[in-house]
Amino acid sequence: MNQKLGSGSLCFSKAPFIISTASVVGKKEGEGPLKNYFDVIGSDEKFGEENWEAAESALQKAALSLTLGKVNRKSEDVRYLFAGDLLGQTIASSFGLKEFEIPLFGLYGACSTCGESLSLAAMNVAAGYADCVAAVTSSHFASAEKQFRFPLEYANQRPKSATWTVTGSGAFLLATEEQAKEWNVKPIAKITGVTTGKIVDFGVKDSMNMGAAMAPAACDLIYQHFQDFTSTPEDYDHIITGDLGTVGSEILVGLLKEKGYDISAVHEDCGVKIYDGEKQGTGAGGSGCGCSAVTLSGYYLKQLKEKRIHKILFVPTGALLSTVSFNEGQTVPGIAHGVVIERI
Amino acid sequence: MNQKLGSGSLCFSKAPFIISTASVVGKKEGEGPLKNYFDVIGSDEKFGEENWEAAESALQKAALSLTLGKVNRKSEDVRYLFAGDLLGQTIASSFGLKEFEIPLFGLYGACSTCGESLSLAAMNVAAGYADCVAAVTSSHFASAEKQFRFPLEYANQRPKSATWTVTGSGAFLLATEEQAKEWNVKPIAKITGVTTGKIVDFGVKDSMNMGAAMAPAACDLIYQHFQDFTSTPEDYDHIITGDLGTVGSEILVGLLKEKGYDISAVHEDCGVKIYDGEKQGTGAGGSGCGCSAVTLSGYYLKQLKEKRIHKILFVPTGALLSTVSFNEGQTVPGIAHGVVIERI
Repeated sequence: MNQKLGSGSLCFSKAPFIISTASVVGKKEGEGPLKNYFDVIGSDEKFGEENWEAAESALQKAALSLTLGKVNRKSEDVRYLFAGDLLGQTIASSFGLKEFEIPLFGLYGACSTCGESLSLAAMNVAAGYADCVAAVTSSHFASAEKQFRFPLEYANQRPKSATWTVTGSGAFLLATEEQAKEWNVKPIAKITGVTTGKIVDFGVKDSMNMGAAMAPAACDLIYQHFQDFTSTPEDYDHIITGDLGTVGSEILVGLLKEKGYDISAVHEDCGVKIYDGEKQGTGAGGSGCGCSAVTLSGYYLKQLKEKRIHKILFVPTGALLSTVSFNEGQTVPGIAHGVVIERI
Repeated sequence: MNQKLGSGSLCFSKAPFIISTASVVGKKEGEGPLKNYFDVIGSDEKFGEENWEAAESALQKAALSLTLGKVNRKSEDVRYLFAGDLLGQTIASSFGLKEFEIPLFGLYGACSTCGESLSLAAMNVAAGYADCVAAVTSSHFASAEKQFRFPLEYANQRPKSATWTVTGSGAFLLATEEQAKEWNVKPIAKITGVTTGKIVDFGVKDSMNMGAAMAPAACDLIYQHFQDFTSTPEDYDHIITGDLGTVGSEILVGLLKEKGYDISAVHEDCGVKIYDGEKQGTGAGGSGCGCSAVTLSGYYLKQLKEKRIHKILFVPTGALLSTVSFNEGQTVPGIAHGVVIERI
């Protein structure tokens, strides 16, 4: 039996396997510290498409195609698809994934969507509802700037606390152990548990400092996770947030210290890992649904597969704002979703 | 054991109960044919708020509060919340539901979101992941016009095929049979199965005729459902689409006839039911996430509770477009999610 833990946490009795993954990124990500870990680095930011939204759709399509191809699978082998992105009405996913013709659960959790999609994907496999499902998320620097900030042509100046939206898509294929064996696929890692986050609003209103807006949600999630799993920071090789950046990461570590947990030795942030902030001019770090997705897919899963690390808590964080809510003077509430991933 | 059927369908061995529901609507919906079925009819379209988006959030907050209150429950009794709306970055849900502090899965399925949220809610209860979960969706005429069409002040003329976005929110509380008994709650109905839809794109590009864009997705879903459950139209008192309106409904019935199924005797559409199109000037009918949510909550669930009907297939439909995708000349892909609801 899968085990229901405290507030929103689940521990799976038969942990779903991650049997394949792929990461597709843009030029800037391909020049950063993780460049050797990504599957595809695009040389053209439009990925051969006419506009930025279509380019982001192309990223998703490429990521899922490659993920399937790596293990010789087709769309028909995938029972459900859990997908989302940052754009209004999540059009990057709708137009990027429609050709696969897989029953779809469309998700929106801002930059936490990679965690949300992996959680629901794992929950459905562990429930016996599917032998194989896929999770796909993306973001694109230019479509996000157009959606949330200023047109690129405007050349707006950015405060140092601002993050840089990652151009990238990560796709993951999850399957039961039996299915992996039947297909003769060597699994990469397994998802042993999840902690689902609630909205946390500390009243931050600065959309150029989303790390600060999301840190309280990450703190709440990680604290809850420790309670539910009766675990401590030492139980994990890394506790990995999605895109808090340098500013938000510092706040998170401080907030958790106040609650009695010191994660400083194990905490890493995908937004900090993916760019060389000094050299690349990316401010506080990378952000976007794609940031945590490609960093998990390319970098952390590789380490788990090679058994260089044993167990991580992956915590993508999302800022639940829109330009409309921002312009109407609303706060920036945050959310985070936690996924425990272990080596096989 | 829950039973996996064909493409994306599930049949629950222990069907989750709908133990409470509430509908909150605007003035126009409160003047329509279903006026006696809704719980709350607002006299002020802004629901006491400063802007349309906050008004839509207020709808969600009121619907969920009332749903909990009807069965003397609190937020803490609800393990997961499945919610979404039509606005960019689903801000109606984020700001409407944050105070409840319930672990949240944010969803986007356009106007199919009520079906998507009920599906995932039922799947999670049936999997044993939760004893009680909630599903909430909404739409608001004015926030949707602002988001998708023209500012109200512009007084744009509308073709007859255009639909009228419903101002309303429907909330549902699902629980296991044991939990309902423990709480001494008389259940309303039960969800016995789901069929999850995939994106279907027939190339329709007219955003003022979304019924035509969504009808193929509804056809695909219903056809697949009949195959998976080896059922026929006669097995249901009603097969209820979300917001195809008069134009889309006719197309759906025709498309399914071509595939060998005549649903004309049992088909109803929430968008057609909710307004008196002639008198209320609502074009082809109501639309929006709120349309199917409040019609199911207020009208159909009441009939199931009173055992006047036995079994329905509820099929909300969504048009996966945004103003950006429309302006870039993209098509309007559709999606539908099917939920089988039976009397206790």
